[in-house]
Amino acid sequence: MSSPDARQIRFIKRPEGPVGAESFEIFSMPVPDPATGEVVIRNRYLSLDPYMRSALNSAENLGRPIEGRVVGQIMASRHPDFREGDWVFAMGRWEQVSLVDGAAARHVNTNIAPASAYLSVLGFTGLTAWSGLKHYGAMHEGETLFVSAASGAVGSVAGQIGKINGLRVAGCAGTDDKVAWLLGELGFDAAFNHRTAPDLTEAVASACPEGIDIDYENVGGAVFDAVFRDMRYGGRIVVCGAISQYEREPRPCVPNIGDFISKRLNMRGFSVRDHADEIHQYVEEAAGWLRDGRLKYRETIVTGIENAPAAFARLFSGENFGKLVIDVG
Amino acid sequence: MSSPDARQIRFIKRPEGPVGAESFEIFSMPVPDPATGEVVIRNRYLSLDPYMRSALNSAENLGRPIEGRVVGQIMASRHPDFREGDWVFAMGRWEQVSLVDGAAARHVNTNIAPASAYLSVLGFTGLTAWSGLKHYGAMHEGETLFVSAASGAVGSVAGQIGKINGLRVAGCAGTDDKVAWLLGELGFDAAFNHRTAPDLTEAVASACPEGIDIDYENVGGAVFDAVFRDMRYGGRIVVCGAISQYEREPRPCVPNIGDFISKRLNMRGFSVRDHADEIHQYVEEAAGWLRDGRLKYRETIVTGIENAPAAFARLFSGENFGKLVIDVG
Repeated sequence: MSSPDARQIRFIKRPEGPVGAESFEIFSMPVPDPATGEVVIRNRYLSLDPYMRSALNSAENLGRPIEGRVVGQIMASRHPDFREGDWVFAMGRWEQVSLVDGAAARHVNTNIAPASAYLSVLGFTGLTAWSGLKHYGAMHEGETLFVSAASGAVGSVAGQIGKINGLRVAGCAGTDDKVAWLLGELGFDAAFNHRTAPDLTEAVASACPEGIDIDYENVGGAVFDAVFRDMRYGGRIVVCGAISQYEREPRPCVPNIGDFISKRLNMRGFSVRDHADEIHQYVEEAAGWLRDGRLKYRETIVTGIENAPAAFARLFSGENFGKLVIDVG
Repeated sequence: MSSPDARQIRFIKRPEGPVGAESFEIFSMPVPDPATGEVVIRNRYLSLDPYMRSALNSAENLGRPIEGRVVGQIMASRHPDFREGDWVFAMGRWEQVSLVDGAAARHVNTNIAPASAYLSVLGFTGLTAWSGLKHYGAMHEGETLFVSAASGAVGSVAGQIGKINGLRVAGCAGTDDKVAWLLGELGFDAAFNHRTAPDLTEAVASACPEGIDIDYENVGGAVFDAVFRDMRYGGRIVVCGAISQYEREPRPCVPNIGDFISKRLNMRGFSVRDHADEIHQYVEEAAGWLRDGRLKYRETIVTGIENAPAAFARLFSGENFGKLVIDVG
């Protein structure tokens, strides 16, 4: 019996400079059968995230679909915890149907939020914000948190977690609309447009007049240089991302290491992968904040898996607003 | 009754570029009388350290003697713990006689080591190495420790503490003599001359073929850039000093912050001042290592307080070998 085909987007060409749709091609593949312990998911939503950019630097990944988190329904299961029709989220790939180890899939509860939220505010994106601040931020009430790319999927959750914990929160984003959303809906204490600010040092200083205790860093580059100047004694720099750096030669600059001594700074890079086992604890906490209205989120949902490559490219040009999700359909 | 005079070196002119003797002048001052709780110390040894360079950037310090740790004998005491003739160490100043709060002075035990050692291996210099590695280094047996300025007063203790804890230890220094001392007497596993190495990246890589787990950073600049490249996953950068940076405009460079994420690096600046209350614990441990021959040290003792300014300048040109101490005489 021949299986029906499912579409898959494969990475076929390493980008030189900014990534574009030409790095990808659509293929058809037969729907796989699960072996013992495995499940097959009909993906409904696919998460597109800046961290995926690094996979495109590796020749090893050529000819393969990029990995990505998905939400969908079980099509076939040989794992005792899952039955056909169950909604789950898992690490899948850029494809309509993903075969995964059942042990790595998790049920989603659509009573808390729509299924797509498990790729954004209730998923690893939210967990990234939460685990970074929790483990490396050492938040204290009344301190100042600065978030770069603050309207982004991770940044917006980081800023709101700061507010929930009683911090003063400032941030930057790349359009006036995004800045207005930070100040209005999300309750940031200060925010500016880093693309139009005439002087980043001044913009950061006036957003954070008493300096910065915690920098939740998503961007790197010139914004980070300005933020670094205003770090306070004992400041923590939580390095989550460096999106300004992903599409160019490594920029070998952050400020003078002497400042690390005089201000006792701590700078720590981390990945949410190190905190994957905390997802249940996070979802429980975040679900409460969603119910209370203390945690808000915004998604950009692009329909059609064939549009994933172009949508992915927009992550780096800043045209996207909130969490980018593909509705696989 | 008029008191005898004592000489004091005051800071009179901020240096433009490398510090020289012209930034200082010798004055005479009357020997002070202690108030209740105070003691007067006839300084025998004065510690000169790179960290003092930052005091010369501040106009507030003009006209005053620079602070520095001293070892000497009590001349007059109005503190119950000290009697005339006791040997003590304390934070004094560049002067023959220092008036200090008795609560901040400590007895030295010259049965363990000569009194001058309380300014080097048994003093805050040693404590700097020990507390930095202990609190921020997270040493594990078999890991690789890299120490820059490894023959220096702090670096040499840091490297030996690494060896005592079962680490592989590599380092760099600025003359072949110093390198030979690291490899010979101190038992470093690898060392190179950073002034003559044709390629620092290659020199670090061949000194640390499996990469670096802990960088005990004293120098900054080009050496640090090379070390940073070879940091291993989970690496710790303990920032103690940046001597290459003290005499120039801040150099706004360390490598790409993306590496912080991919390697989960942690970079922490610290100061021994935060660990002053651990000096007793350190001295106890270090005294044991000195007795066992597991901890060695080297001092350059310059005689005459009038020679302190010129000797201080040599700290930054690299002409000095081991801990620089002035024998006040």
